[in-house]
Amino acid sequence: MREERKSMLIVISGPSGVGKGTIYSQLLKNDHSLTFSVSVTTRAPRLGERDGVDYFFITQEEYDRLLAQDAFLEHAAVHGNCYGTLKSQVEAKLAAGWSVVLDIDPQGARNVMNIWPDCVSIFLLPPSYEELRRRLYGRNTDNPEAIERRLSNARGEIEQASLYQYNVVNDDVERAYQRVAAIIAAEKLRTTRYKPVVE
Amino acid sequence: MREERKSMLIVISGPSGVGKGTIYSQLLKNDHSLTFSVSVTTRAPRLGERDGVDYFFITQEEYDRLLAQDAFLEHAAVHGNCYGTLKSQVEAKLAAGWSVVLDIDPQGARNVMNIWPDCVSIFLLPPSYEELRRRLYGRNTDNPEAIERRLSNARGEIEQASLYQYNVVNDDVERAYQRVAAIIAAEKLRTTRYKPVVE
Repeated sequence: MREERKSMLIVISGPSGVGKGTIYSQLLKNDHSLTFSVSVTTRAPRLGERDGVDYFFITQEEYDRLLAQDAFLEHAAVHGNCYGTLKSQVEAKLAAGWSVVLDIDPQGARNVMNIWPDCVSIFLLPPSYEELRRRLYGRNTDNPEAIERRLSNARGEIEQASLYQYNVVNDDVERAYQRVAAIIAAEKLRTTRYKPVVE
Repeated sequence: MREERKSMLIVISGPSGVGKGTIYSQLLKNDHSLTFSVSVTTRAPRLGERDGVDYFFITQEEYDRLLAQDAFLEHAAVHGNCYGTLKSQVEAKLAAGWSVVLDIDPQGARNVMNIWPDCVSIFLLPPSYEELRRRLYGRNTDNPEAIERRLSNARGEIEQASLYQYNVVNDDVERAYQRVAAIIAAEKLRTTRYKPVVE
């Protein structure tokens, strides 16, 4: 039978250390209707990173010009480097029939939800602040001061969890992944973007 | 962790012969947060049917009085007998924390969606009219004239499939069941009715 489908933009967010990246990677691996948007960055490529695959590597001047053109769906400065998601990249992939998943921090997520109100927005929560602290220390990527700053940000971010359409507690990564996958499976069946044609 | 949840009303509909009853039964069997609403009927109990369990068996006078009181979420006359879903029944079960699933014909479903706009509405479609005809003849419960009338009704009903929030094609009963289960799993995670409290 024939089915008419519209692709969708999916935003996955949550506080630092909640496990967004793992769930995002599993989604892209398991659901072949999904793709990601290649971000731009002003930082230098690391060994093995390829332009147009891992990032679009651009100069600060190019970045500033894109910013002035309002070309970003969201953008952020991290450790003195600039990062951004180009509207044109996302639009091109949606137009080609892909659904696009973004793994972004809560500040970026709120920008995307404002610009793109019919996106599917999912916020991941830790089972407790204690567990989030444990995971951040376990990653071994930040010093204690940076970790405590991340935890303090997490409180404000978690207070805004109800701004998203869906909340998923990442108590167990497999269970959380299954919940996110169910949300995406359900959203594909919404009549706002799905029309089966019975012949 | 603590989670605040609101229960929901779920409407499963579709044309006669599409397989609503099978999926409805599987949901009730597998998801223990779901329950059904006992309907009222003016028909006589069949052997083994129990009042208050299978139906509330009432007289035509009682039925007419309930109708006059606007007590029904939906009601219908079938083969000279009257059936109805009481608002009070559904409200009591929702208030007790159950989510309530209704398996109803498209006319009843449209009434429920009008009275209860925040219900979750799922419409099941056959993969083709040919397959629906095959299933209706296979059930062996109607004569050919009745079957052709059901098929003719089905065309109008399927044209209104986009009035529902979700459409699910019942091409394979296990796959269709999994899709409906994913919709319900996702709807439980909506921030309009779900709030995890991180401590």
